[in-house]
Amino acid sequence: MSNMTKRKRSGRTAGFEAKARQKSSRRGRKETDGAVWLYGGHAVLAAIRNKSREIQRLILSSAGRGTFDVVLTEALAARAEVAPAPSAETLATQDFERTLPQGAVHQGIAALCKPPPEYGLEVLQIKPGETGSGAKRPVVILDQVTDPQNVGAVLRSAAVFGARAVVTTDRHAPGATGALAKAASGALETVPYVRVINLVRAMAEMRDMGFWLVGLDAGAEAPLSRAKGDGATALVLGAEGKGLRRLTAENCDALARLPVAVSAAEAGIDSLNVSAAAAVALYELVREG
Amino acid sequence: MSNMTKRKRSGRTAGFEAKARQKSSRRGRKETDGAVWLYGGHAVLAAIRNKSREIQRLILSSAGRGTFDVVLTEALAARAEVAPAPSAETLATQDFERTLPQGAVHQGIAALCKPPPEYGLEVLQIKPGETGSGAKRPVVILDQVTDPQNVGAVLRSAAVFGARAVVTTDRHAPGATGALAKAASGALETVPYVRVINLVRAMAEMRDMGFWLVGLDAGAEAPLSRAKGDGATALVLGAEGKGLRRLTAENCDALARLPVAVSAAEAGIDSLNVSAAAAVALYELVREG
Repeated sequence: MSNMTKRKRSGRTAGFEAKARQKSSRRGRKETDGAVWLYGGHAVLAAIRNKSREIQRLILSSAGRGTFDVVLTEALAARAEVAPAPSAETLATQDFERTLPQGAVHQGIAALCKPPPEYGLEVLQIKPGETGSGAKRPVVILDQVTDPQNVGAVLRSAAVFGARAVVTTDRHAPGATGALAKAASGALETVPYVRVINLVRAMAEMRDMGFWLVGLDAGAEAPLSRAKGDGATALVLGAEGKGLRRLTAENCDALARLPVAVSAAEAGIDSLNVSAAAAVALYELVREG
Repeated sequence: MSNMTKRKRSGRTAGFEAKARQKSSRRGRKETDGAVWLYGGHAVLAAIRNKSREIQRLILSSAGRGTFDVVLTEALAARAEVAPAPSAETLATQDFERTLPQGAVHQGIAALCKPPPEYGLEVLQIKPGETGSGAKRPVVILDQVTDPQNVGAVLRSAAVFGARAVVTTDRHAPGATGALAKAASGALETVPYVRVINLVRAMAEMRDMGFWLVGLDAGAEAPLSRAKGDGATALVLGAEGKGLRRLTAENCDALARLPVAVSAAEAGIDSLNVSAAAAVALYELVREG
């Protein structure tokens, strides 16, 4: 993506620029057709198990072949009739690594995949049949959280705590890249990652659907345990350092804080990492008792 | 460190080997005297505010000079009489980046620091004067969690929730490196990072001090909310994937689980990232009500 941008900016021929623009219109998807390399055991195996994911290539290092041969064969067999994937190629370690972004923690397995479906807010709809804890399943809204590792970790926690979806803005949010998928550890295949153009309008729609919108804000008076609603809650989290944007905060039904030890506040360590905050807040919403 | 190790293994002169061994005995400290580069605003400013940290060099990129000039001057002034630090050098971006590990997210500020003090288990002692929530301050024990970003994030959550310390094994745990300090976002300066040779023996000592040892284990029957003790709890977390080692689990007073949605368990996403798990568990221990 950064290469793409650089090339675009360097202003070559109009034809090249148009192509670059087209390619970069789906951010973080580096190959033609918007396909992107996923890597790491959990991310790749979950993508293969997700029959709505189109797999274009599947590669292993020889070490990866040893580790993943059995589970990979099973996962490929399970989708063979519905959505066949190409058989796995084993590459020399150097060729394998050259294919992936530098520094990718790949465990010797990678897949070139078409992006996941683009979800709209309709996936959040609380269905008439949902009752009890099912009807209360929360949603996480991220207001300009840009780090793919953090967003991936939020998806993972969202999956574990049974959240309906993770909603983010179309701009100032990472695409469904390999780094995000790796941190999500498979959750990108099970939790809808919904990207909206206008966050304030989306929040209004979610309120109409029945969600109680709680923004996490270190300066809020109420602890989350008191500010959460009785029904389904949509948690709104801002970027680290910046927090919620003013307009986002104003459009919440309530603002709430997580506890911070006095000693930490005095030392200026007054907030959790955004993915840790999301995990803690989701836990508060779904915990028993 | 990896260079150090390689050199050691290549077997040069005895004199060189002895020196290399001496240097590499403090892991993750790449410069002479065991000093290590910390980077990023929170990590560096917290180190400067920590008067027991010896600062050997302080560098800024020109962008970093713009961002940090005022806070840095304040932080340096506050320690000037007790533990003076060298004045900050402004480097050209390229020279600045060449000084730090590749890929370091530095925000244009870095400091070469002597390592933090080596703490022993005595820092965990519950003092006679501590009562109420003070006496219940928890401890986090990490059983072979090797990723510095995860350990750093655990330190940050430990600070926010007022934990006494993070205890880990001397081997199979990251040193107090720049990557760890960056993820800790200043918490490495306020939360003792205690490394022990024998974890089982350390757990026995902690039990004698009055801690209730609870191991997090996805297969446990009791939720943490029921398995936590009435007094101070020591949470024990294992590495991702591997979990607690058998002997570590056997030496806990109780094993407990965090909730996992049925949908997630079915999809094989049955655990949080270890730093998210630590944050959630600490929250469960300190939450009001």
